Amino acid sequence: MRWIRYTLDGETRYGILEDNDRITAVRGDPFSGHETTATRLDLGDVKLEVPVVPPTFYCVGLNYVKHIGTVGLNIPTKPDVGYRANNALVAHGEDVIMPADANRIHYEGELVVVIGKKTRNIGIDEVAQCILGYTIGNDVSERDWQATDRTFWRSKNADTFKPMGPWISTSADLPAMETTVSVNGQETTRFHTAEMLFGIEEFISTMSRYITLHPGDILWMGTDGHSPNLQHGDRVDVTLTGLGTLSNRFVTAGRN
Amino acid sequence: MRWIRYTLDGETRYGILEDNDRITAVRGDPFSGHETTATRLDLGDVKLEVPVVPPTFYCVGLNYVKHIGTVGLNIPTKPDVGYRANNALVAHGEDVIMPADANRIHYEGELVVVIGKKTRNIGIDEVAQCILGYTIGNDVSERDWQATDRTFWRSKNADTFKPMGPWISTSADLPAMETTVSVNGQETTRFHTAEMLFGIEEFISTMSRYITLHPGDILWMGTDGHSPNLQHGDRVDVTLTGLGTLSNRFVTAGRN
Repeated sequence: MRWIRYTLDGETRYGILEDNDRITAVRGDPFSGHETTATRLDLGDVKLEVPVVPPTFYCVGLNYVKHIGTVGLNIPTKPDVGYRANNALVAHGEDVIMPADANRIHYEGELVVVIGKKTRNIGIDEVAQCILGYTIGNDVSERDWQATDRTFWRSKNADTFKPMGPWISTSADLPAMETTVSVNGQETTRFHTAEMLFGIEEFISTMSRYITLHPGDILWMGTDGHSPNLQHGDRVDVTLTGLGTLSNRFVTAGRN
Repeated sequence: MRWIRYTLDGETRYGILEDNDRITAVRGDPFSGHETTATRLDLGDVKLEVPVVPPTFYCVGLNYVKHIGTVGLNIPTKPDVGYRANNALVAHGEDVIMPADANRIHYEGELVVVIGKKTRNIGIDEVAQCILGYTIGNDVSERDWQATDRTFWRSKNADTFKPMGPWISTSADLPAMETTVSVNGQETTRFHTAEMLFGIEEFISTMSRYITLHPGDILWMGTDGHSPNLQHGDRVDVTLTGLGTLSNRFVTAGRN
């Protein structure tokens, strides 16, 4: 089942995506309950929105060995989660605006876990029950600012630096899943999504010892590999097997 | 004018606090518009809530010279903002729960700025127009985890580690304002709130070059001085001149 969030006639709602291009409108949402309606819409007739605006936006850094090598950092010894910021979220199909003073903009294709219910202090075996589903994120990063600023406030959280979508799939075949990224249709990165240092179960179970997870919270699981420097006009597609493709064009601020 | 957020009969609403103990109920909220109603309530008859749940929770680290000395870090050369997490918010009067495996829990009394409207790319002179008001935060921190974890996920964002309130004042005399913190009624910290390395105008103007600030976003401005190690049963009061007092009891998980 695939949850989609869209805007039509100025109203933003949830729907269920069927047959890749038809939406069944619902009343309610995937977190607090819903009922389907008789309304059917074409995917092409609505504006896609990010599939959820999270209460808290968690993001794992340094969770794949090859990526850690490229940024020259030590391999983490425990699952310490980090944060990203809601101001930076944009939907599938929206532009990533590269600030005019940005230099080295990279993509990071990531699996995103969406929390479905209030969760505290759970074991590894209970994690699956608290997950609503999965979507795709692109943790866009400006590497010069990442190296010189004390925090990720603009290197990873400038407006439009967090594309997420296109929708939430309630199931995923994680062991078989691959993440591929392409720039202008040319594949540039491919990795086995499950080859994480610390997996979803370990992160969520550990976090839940100190933190209450809430419906709609999201957890981005980190990336592997290396991105070229992106240029004005590049289109970046992040595909996760079975989940779909998150596609965004990168444009420099002030250029057409 | 003081905005208060409260729960009565299972419903959470905004009101306007008058005469220190009377609430005028409103329809709407301070961000998207409101109208007052004829309903008057006693402050003692409602449950206080955090005055806003922010879309994005910004927090300045290392913004006062004495505090930087105590944590042994270099003085920042530019205003790089950080983040805290909504899961950790608790209201005035609620308990801070210290996890059983926590060691050195410290308070950090802070001025909190509440953003009133959507803001992007503004100059120093325009910052005042985008501020709704001010409240008080206690950036509770576990210093051992802060030293050993790669992020602040549990050292500063464990559940209940971010008391905020009691309300939002729409005006503040910043040049004259002092922050005082007391433990069980004994003053332990006092500093001039305005003695920041980088002020409110500089932070918000700089952030707005890369980030859209949204109504309800909050910016915690950092702290000065040093906290004792807090113990089970301690009551911490953070007072900012003209804003009020944020008061919370600290208790160890599993103890009464």
